[in-house]
Amino acid sequence: MRWWGWGDPAHPPGLGAEALEFLREHIGVAPTPHPPVALAHVRLEPSALPEGAAAALRAVVGAQGLHMDHDMRVAHAAGRGYTDLVLLRKGRPEGAPDAVLHPADRAQVRAVLDVCVRHSLAVVPFGGGTSVVGGVAPLRGRHAAVVALDLARLSEIVDVDRESMAVTVQAGRRAPELERELGQQGLTLGHFPQSFEYVSLGGCAATRSAGQASTGYGRFEELVQGLDLVAPIGEVKLPAFPATAAGPDLRQLLIGSEGTLGVIAGLTLRVRPAPAQRLYEGVFFREFAAGVQALRALAQEHVAPAVTRLSDEQETAMSLALAGAGGVKGRLGRAYLGLRGYGVGRGQGTGAIGDVSGASGAGCLAILGFEGSETEVAYRRRLALALVRRHGGLPVGRSPGRAWVRQRYAAPYLRDELLTFGVMVETLETATRWSNLERLHGHVGGAIAGALEAQGTPGLVMCHVSHLYETGASLYFTFLAAQREGAEVEQWQAVKQAASEAIVGGGGTITHHHAVGRDHAPWLEQEIGGAGVAALRALKAELDPAGIMNPGKLLSG
Amino acid sequence: MRWWGWGDPAHPPGLGAEALEFLREHIGVAPTPHPPVALAHVRLEPSALPEGAAAALRAVVGAQGLHMDHDMRVAHAAGRGYTDLVLLRKGRPEGAPDAVLHPADRAQVRAVLDVCVRHSLAVVPFGGGTSVVGGVAPLRGRHAAVVALDLARLSEIVDVDRESMAVTVQAGRRAPELERELGQQGLTLGHFPQSFEYVSLGGCAATRSAGQASTGYGRFEELVQGLDLVAPIGEVKLPAFPATAAGPDLRQLLIGSEGTLGVIAGLTLRVRPAPAQRLYEGVFFREFAAGVQALRALAQEHVAPAVTRLSDEQETAMSLALAGAGGVKGRLGRAYLGLRGYGVGRGQGTGAIGDVSGASGAGCLAILGFEGSETEVAYRRRLALALVRRHGGLPVGRSPGRAWVRQRYAAPYLRDELLTFGVMVETLETATRWSNLERLHGHVGGAIAGALEAQGTPGLVMCHVSHLYETGASLYFTFLAAQREGAEVEQWQAVKQAASEAIVGGGGTITHHHAVGRDHAPWLEQEIGGAGVAALRALKAELDPAGIMNPGKLLSG
Repeated sequence: MRWWGWGDPAHPPGLGAEALEFLREHIGVAPTPHPPVALAHVRLEPSALPEGAAAALRAVVGAQGLHMDHDMRVAHAAGRGYTDLVLLRKGRPEGAPDAVLHPADRAQVRAVLDVCVRHSLAVVPFGGGTSVVGGVAPLRGRHAAVVALDLARLSEIVDVDRESMAVTVQAGRRAPELERELGQQGLTLGHFPQSFEYVSLGGCAATRSAGQASTGYGRFEELVQGLDLVAPIGEVKLPAFPATAAGPDLRQLLIGSEGTLGVIAGLTLRVRPAPAQRLYEGVFFREFAAGVQALRALAQEHVAPAVTRLSDEQETAMSLALAGAGGVKGRLGRAYLGLRGYGVGRGQGTGAIGDVSGASGAGCLAILGFEGSETEVAYRRRLALALVRRHGGLPVGRSPGRAWVRQRYAAPYLRDELLTFGVMVETLETATRWSNLERLHGHVGGAIAGALEAQGTPGLVMCHVSHLYETGASLYFTFLAAQREGAEVEQWQAVKQAASEAIVGGGGTITHHHAVGRDHAPWLEQEIGGAGVAALRALKAELDPAGIMNPGKLLSG
Repeated sequence: MRWWGWGDPAHPPGLGAEALEFLREHIGVAPTPHPPVALAHVRLEPSALPEGAAAALRAVVGAQGLHMDHDMRVAHAAGRGYTDLVLLRKGRPEGAPDAVLHPADRAQVRAVLDVCVRHSLAVVPFGGGTSVVGGVAPLRGRHAAVVALDLARLSEIVDVDRESMAVTVQAGRRAPELERELGQQGLTLGHFPQSFEYVSLGGCAATRSAGQASTGYGRFEELVQGLDLVAPIGEVKLPAFPATAAGPDLRQLLIGSEGTLGVIAGLTLRVRPAPAQRLYEGVFFREFAAGVQALRALAQEHVAPAVTRLSDEQETAMSLALAGAGGVKGRLGRAYLGLRGYGVGRGQGTGAIGDVSGASGAGCLAILGFEGSETEVAYRRRLALALVRRHGGLPVGRSPGRAWVRQRYAAPYLRDELLTFGVMVETLETATRWSNLERLHGHVGGAIAGALEAQGTPGLVMCHVSHLYETGASLYFTFLAAQREGAEVEQWQAVKQAASEAIVGGGGTITHHHAVGRDHAPWLEQEIGGAGVAALRALKAELDPAGIMNPGKLLSG
C-alpha cells in the first residue's frame, strides 16, 4: 500500500476534468496540486525503544522480525483516516511506532506481549492498517515506547470444514487472499468492506466490521463461530459452536475489542457456497422517503438483496457529477436523462441536507445486488422488484449496478486524488431504527453542513442508506469541502464533533461499522453509560493489567 | 403453577395405560403411584432473614411486596429441573428463599439491591421459575440470607414501534401475555420454548433461550435490540440499535448472565408479522444419518422451516409407544405401519445409542414446521421437500405435524406423571458442528446409556436434532429409567456427570439453550477456559462487588 494513501500505486486515476470542474464550481479546489512529500522527507522522532527492550524483542522474533528503520515505521505510523492522510502527506505524522514487530506465530505473539509487559511497551496490533478512526495510531499511553505488532505472518488457513461450512484461519490473513483460496473450493466468506483489498480478518473481528453485502451474508460478528485472543495474562480460547447458551457470549466481547484486550490470533468463520449468480441493478425513486420505505419493506419482508443501498438526492447527483464520463456518468446520465419524463430531476425536493449542490429534486438511486443460487436470486428479485414498484421505485436496468460493482473499492483512491486538489473528503456512519431514520438523516446531514459552513468552507453533504436490518438500517454520510489550508485537522475536528453529537443526541449509534478507535472514544460513554464503560475497564484490567494493549483506543482517557 | 411440578393443575393426564405398560416392560415402574406430599407437609427451615433486613426491605416494597410465608417460600424454592421436582415432591426441597420480594418497578428493584448489599443478602432474580439447571436455586453463598426477587409486577409493554418492528417490555412479562398482546396487533415475537406457558422475557434473556422455532425466528439473543440491567453498582442501559460497531457488545454479555451480574429489567425485542400460514408436516427417513444430511442441506441452502426436528430411531419409536392411542400414536402408527413397505421398521439399524427399546430400524421421524407469508411458505416448502426427497426422506403428511404442535408444551406435564410412577425422566442438550454431529450423538447417547446401566437402572435413551444453523445444530437428549428409590439425586448426578463429560470431551457446548445455572457450572471452565472465567469474574466483581447476585450459578465455587 502507498505509504501516504490508499492502495495499489498502479491504480489509474479516477478524477476527471469534468468532476474537478464541478468541485471547483461548488466548493473550490486548490489552484495547484498538493502532492505528498517524498518518503525520505517524512520526519519522525528517533525511536524511543530502549536497547534492553529491543534485545528482548529480538530474542523472540529474530532480527528479521524487528524493524526500526524509517520506512517501516512510516508504513505503520497511521491508519487511513482523513487526518492520518493529511498529516502523512505533509510528512508530519503525529508519531510512529518505535519499532515494528513481525511475529511468526502465536507463541511469538505471546512472548512479545510478555516482553512488552516487562519493559512497559505499548502494543498496537496491526492488521491491514486500514482503520479510519485512529485504531492503529501509535499512542504510548503511559508507557516508555510503543510497538506495532504486525500480524502479516500469521496468515495460515488452518482448516476448511466443508461439511460444517466453516473455515479456521490465522488472524493476519488478508480478506482477498482468503476469498481467493475459498473461491477455488467454490466457497465465499461474503465479507466485502470497502477496505477489502487490504483488510485482515483479525482486523475485521477486532472492529466489528460489516461488509457491503452484510445484508446478505451477515456482519462479521455473525460469521465468527469461535476465536482466540492472546492477552497479556494468557490466551482466551473460545471454541467454535453454531450456538451456545453457556453464559455471556465472550465471543461478542472479544469481537469489537479493537486490540485493547489482547491480540486476536485465530478465527473460525462461517462460509457459504460461492453465489452461482450475482445480479446488480439500479432503481430510481422520486424521493428519498419513498426509497427508505421500500428498503424497510425489503428487510421486513425478508426479500432484501445481499447488497442494498439507497443514495439520497445529494449523493445521487454527486455520483453523476463525479464519475468519469466513460464510467457511471455516461451510462447513468443517459438513464437519468431518460427519467425526466418520470418526474425525476425537475422537482424542488425536500433538501433535508445541504442543498449546495443543486441536487434537490434529482431523485434517488438505489443499487440492489442479488447474490445466491439461481433459484434464490430469481425468487428474491421477483418479490423485491414488485415491492420496490409498489413503493414507487422504477427499475432502470443493470448498468448502474455494474458501475457500482466496478467502483465498489474505488472511493479511497478517489480520496487521495481529492486531497491532492485540496479537497477535504470524509465519511462517517451510524445506524438507527426505521422509525428514526429519516429524522436522523436530516439531523446529522444538517449538523455536518452547518459545521462546514461555520468553518467558512460550505460543503457538499450526501448520504446513503445501506446494511438493512428488520428493525433499522445504517446511514453512511460523505462530505466534501475545500480544505482550510494549515488548519485541516482543526477543520475536521469541528465537523466530526458536530456530526458525532448529532448522532448520539439523535438516537443513532456512534458507529455502525467503522469501530470506535480513538476518534469515537469520547462518545462511547454516552452510548453505553458509565456502568458499561466501567464493565469494559474491569475487563481490560483483568486481561491486560499493565494496560499495554492499544492505549487510547475504545476507552478514552 | 403447581408448587410440586409443572403447569396448570387442570391439564388432563397424558400417560395412557398402554404407555405405562410399555415402560413397565422396558424399564420397570413403581408398583404403586408416588404422589407428592401435601403442601403443608413441605419442610422448610425457618426464615433466616434478620428483622432489620426485613424492615428495610419492607420499607422499599411495602408489606404487600415482602412475603415470608411457607407457601410463597415453597413456590420459590426451586426451578423445574428433575432433582428440583424429586425433592419438592418429597416435601424436602434443598432450601427456600428466606423471603420473596415483589418489587413494583425498576426503582424498587434498585433500592432492594441496595438493601441487600447493606445487609449481605443473596438475591435470586426470579422470572417464570422454569429453570431446569438450578438457575433459581435459593443459594446463600457467603451471605446471611437469600431472597427471591420475583419480577412478576414488572410486566408492562412500554412501547410497540411498528415501523421498526420492535417492542419494548419490562422483563417480568410472561411470554404468552406478550404474544397475546402482539397477536392482537398482527405481530409475533416468535419465541416458543417448551416452557412457553410460564417463562418470563427477562428469564429468556438471562438464560440465552432458544425457542422451538428459533431456526425461523432466531434465538432470543438475536431478538434483543437493547436491554438494561439493574446491577448493585448501578444501571447498565444499552440502547436499542439494529446493529453497532461501538466496541464489545455488552448486550451479549448481559444476555446469558443468569442473574449473576444484576437484574435484567427491560428489553427491546425484534418482532415480526404474525405468520399468515403455519404448516407442519412429517417426513420419515430410513436412517438417522440420512435425516441429518437432509437437515444440514435445509440449513445450508437457506430453506429450513421455522421449526425443524429430526428424532432418532429411539425417539421415533418412543413417540409411538408413549403417545396416547387417540393422539400421535393412532395417526402416526397408521402412517408408520404404512411405511413398512418403504423399508422402515424392519432393518437392524445401527443403534448408536442404547438399543433397549428395540427401536433400532424403526426409521426416523422429522417434523418440518413452515411459518410465514403464504409466498414464503410455498417457496420454502417446495424447495425443502424436494431436498428432503433427494436425501431419501418420505413426506408423510400433516398428521404428525399437527400432533407435534398439539403436544409442543406437553412434555413437562408428562414428566410429572412419570415421576408419580417412579420413572426418572430427564433431558439435556448440546450443539456442535455438522461434521461432528453424528459422532457426538453416539458418544453422548452411549455415555448416558452406560451410566444408567452402571446405576443398575438400564434406560431408554433418545435424541432429536433441532435448532438448525448453517454450521451445525443442537442435539436434545431425553432419557428414562426406573428411579433408584431413596437415591434419586445420586442416580441423576452420576448420569449427568457422564453426559456432561461426554459433551465437553466430544466437541459439544455444555448447553445450547438450557443455560449454565448451577448444574453446568462445573463444566464452564472447560468450555471457555481459565482466562474466560477470569474475565467473567472480573466483570462480576465490577458490577456486583459484594457478590450478592445469584451466587453459585454460572460460575462455580
